[in-house]
This record gives sequence, structure tokens and C-alpha cells, in this order.
Amino acid sequence: MLIDCGEGTQIQLRKFKLKFSKIDYIFISHLHGDHFFGLMGLISSFHLNKRTRLLTIFGPNGLDEIITVQLKHSNTRLNFPLRFVPTNPENEELILEEKKFQVLTFPLKHRIACTGFLIKEKSGLRNLIKEKLLENKLPLEAINSLRQGKDFKDESENVIYSVKEYTHPPRPLRSYAFCSDTGFDMEIVKYIKGASLLYHEATFGNEEKERARETFHSTAADAGVIARNAMVGKLLLGHYSTRYLDLSPLLEEARAEFPETYLSEEGITYTLD
Amino acid sequence: MLIDCGEGTQIQLRKFKLKFSKIDYIFISHLHGDHFFGLMGLISSFHLNKRTRLLTIFGPNGLDEIITVQLKHSNTRLNFPLRFVPTNPENEELILEEKKFQVLTFPLKHRIACTGFLIKEKSGLRNLIKEKLLENKLPLEAINSLRQGKDFKDESENVIYSVKEYTHPPRPLRSYAFCSDTGFDMEIVKYIKGASLLYHEATFGNEEKERARETFHSTAADAGVIARNAMVGKLLLGHYSTRYLDLSPLLEEARAEFPETYLSEEGITYTLD
Repeated sequence: MLIDCGEGTQIQLRKFKLKFSKIDYIFISHLHGDHFFGLMGLISSFHLNKRTRLLTIFGPNGLDEIITVQLKHSNTRLNFPLRFVPTNPENEELILEEKKFQVLTFPLKHRIACTGFLIKEKSGLRNLIKEKLLENKLPLEAINSLRQGKDFKDESENVIYSVKEYTHPPRPLRSYAFCSDTGFDMEIVKYIKGASLLYHEATFGNEEKERARETFHSTAADAGVIARNAMVGKLLLGHYSTRYLDLSPLLEEARAEFPETYLSEEGITYTLD
Repeated sequence: MLIDCGEGTQIQLRKFKLKFSKIDYIFISHLHGDHFFGLMGLISSFHLNKRTRLLTIFGPNGLDEIITVQLKHSNTRLNFPLRFVPTNPENEELILEEKKFQVLTFPLKHRIACTGFLIKEKSGLRNLIKEKLLENKLPLEAINSLRQGKDFKDESENVIYSVKEYTHPPRPLRSYAFCSDTGFDMEIVKYIKGASLLYHEATFGNEEKERARETFHSTAADAGVIARNAMVGKLLLGHYSTRYLDLSPLLEEARAEFPETYLSEEGITYTLD
């Protein structure tokens, strides 16, 4: 999964040795250039690298036209199927349902149609307690039932093997919320409640609060307020204005609102645990 | 003047400290992504940097639609006038006439409409010989006439001051020919005859001659043959297939046809003298 794709994304992917042929889903938040000018280059490289696997792109209406026009004028017929799914800038929507995760979009408050993305892990199978399996040889039926979180019962509904006794409680489910470009908007809180990790833009510092309001961007402190109200695990800041050569004031201002805040930096991996 | 604009051009311009606000003319040879995917990013940056000066883009039909569609969906009204001039892929054409230079396009032989560019210096004013001016005080009229290469005569058409005696012969006029993507095509020779510097693609080496013919690209030797027949000053190779980690065989193969051949490399300045 790739969220947003500014100019030079494929160059950065190569630089950081990320195998971009593995990308199956691309999510574009909105149609300002810094969020999608690298998309055509990536699509072209997939084509030149003889990709055959389906690529699905989620993004605002109009992105399909932008892609189609460029393929038309370069007389390109892609080697692989490309599916485009328009996002809804007005309401929360489930856009992808996979075995292990789902993806939702929700409205952001920017100058043009813009959505956030929430990637949520789905409840998986429980793990059996090894020691208990060594004590008793369980039938396959019982194992399947327990892994799905159901007690194994006999015909008279007596519990023979209980989920509690035979399995570990499931790992807490992880989720990642991504708010690319948005003005301060408390409406966002309800969509991202309890996310393990929230990426929220922090274009400006407190001293540019007015400018943030005018341009539909957020301050670092705004991002902190959203994170605190949404009770997320961690907050990751990004989308800094180029005026900030030193980002530590932004980090401090956000931490005053929400201590578990970090600066996103190029090429760094952030883990959700 | 900028010729072609692949993805990341603005990043490279910044890296090599080239002031890209100075660019007034952009020439796009054809609509394959590696030749224009950086154009929208550059236009956007001009806009964000509050450019007000006219920008003129020369390129194939369809490029205007590609630009317009993207401006429309990002709801952008540029701060500066953008003029688009379609190039003619069928015939040689004068597309720009400036005080000191002119630019012509000519057809290349590629899979889609593609043109080469020839930038030609125009004949300038002659320089006066200092020592002669100290001997004689010339009237302004005579000076203007001599600088324009005309003998200064009296009413009876007798030469008073001759161009030959009073001025240096003009510096030879420089020209630069750019052949982005093209199959081997002797038709090109007539358009670029005598250019001071020829950039010609050299995607492949001799061992891939067949592949070059199939894909409408050239070998390094092809570029050398064109350079020799066009009697250019120097040949600059480029557009190498990524398979060549070592470019010296390409250079050798071209030099076998045309000794004054050089490899173009990123970030290097090549002077015309």
C-alpha cells in the first residue's frame, strides 16, 4: 500500500531499496501536485517493468481523467489491469476489505476535495497455548473452533475445551490513520478514534496559526489536539512548511498537547506495536 | 531554455543550483514520460514561487490537454501567463525568433510524434578594431554601418571606411542540435548540418542493433554516423539504456564513426566554442 505519491516517489523508493513492484494499492488523498505528481512515473515504471498484476488506485474524481489523458497521448496500452476507485470527499466510506485489514476514507477540510485514510487490522485467529496441546491431543475440529474464538462443546452443549484455557488472548489490533492536508477540524476525531498511529499534517507552528486557518492547513499544536481527543497511541507529524529548517519547535508545540508525538523524517521506518 | 523535463527535473535543478525561475522557454520533444513527467511539478513550483513572467512551452499536440486537465482538477489558476505552442512532427519549422538566436524543430523517427530542436545563434554585430578607432575619430553613422557589416561610403559611393579594415571578422555562429529519441535516420542530417554541438540519443550498443531498430532508438555508432555526415563540431551521447553500467563501449563505438564524441553525464556543463 502506498499513500500519496509526490514527484520523485519512485526515485525515493529505489533509494531506500523498497521493492515497488509489491505495491498493489495506491491511495491519493487529493489532487494537489505534491500528493500525486509521481503517480504517472510509477505507473509507467510498472508498465516498463512488465507488471501483469492488478493495480488499484483510490483517489478523487478527476484522477482517472489525468491518468487516461497521459496514457492516450503517449499511445500507451498498459501491460497490467489498472482499476480506479473514486473516493468520496463527503462521507466516511469503507473502500477496501481484505482478509487481514480494511481501509476507510473520511473527509478532511482542505481547499479541494481531500480524504484521510484509516487502515485497520482485522481480528485474526487466536493462537493455541503450546503446553496445553502437549497435555491433550485435540481433534482438528476443536482446534479450528478454538482459533476462531469459539469454545468446543459436545452435543449437550457442555464445554470440553474452552477458548480461555486453550488460547492466548489475541494481540490488540493495529490501525494507522493518515491525514494528509487539512485545516484544524474536530470532526476528524470520530473517524480515527483509538488509532495506534496517527499521521497528521503540521504545516505551521503556533506563530503562523492565522496563515494555517487561511490556507486550510494545521499547526503542530492542532495535530496534538486532534491526537489527544482521538486518544490515539502515537502521533507522527509531517508536511512541514519549507520555512522550518529546525523542526524542534513544531515537535515541542505538539508535545505540549500530546506527549507521544514524533517527527516523520524521510527514509525512516515507524513501527506499529 | 529547457529541453525536455523528466520526473524530478526540478529536484536536479535545485541540486545543481540552477536558478530555474530564469527559464522562459521549455521544449518538449515527445510525450513519453521520461521526457515530460517533471513538467507539471516545474509549472507548479513557478506558481507557488509567485512567478508573473510569461512561460512558453513548445511541445506535441496533447501536451496542452495534459497540463489543462491537471490545473483544472487541482483548481489552480496560474499566477503567470502560460503560452503553449504545438510543434509540427512532419516538417521542419521555425518556432522561435529572438534577437540573438532562433529555434527550429525537425521530425525525428520515433514510435510517437517526436521532434528534434536546433538552437542557432544569429549573426550579431561586428566588433571594431580598437587601434583603428584611435587613429581616426569615426562619426557615429560610420560606426553603426561598420558594426552591421556595411562599408561606410560617401554620396558618390566611394568607400571611406571599409568593414574589412575597421572590424574584426565575426565570431563563428554557434548552434546546438538536440535529438532526443529517434531511430537511425539519415533524413536528420540535412536539418542539423554543421551544428557546433549535436546531442544524439545512443540507447544501445552495437550488440543490440536489432533491438534499436525495433524500438525506434539508435546505437552509439548510429549517432556517430549521423554526426559524421552532418559534419557537426562535437557529438554528445545520452539516453543510455540502464543495462550499461559501463558506458565506455558506447563511447568507443561512436568514436569509431566520429572521433569528436563525448558522453553526456548528469550535472556536467558542456560549452560550445
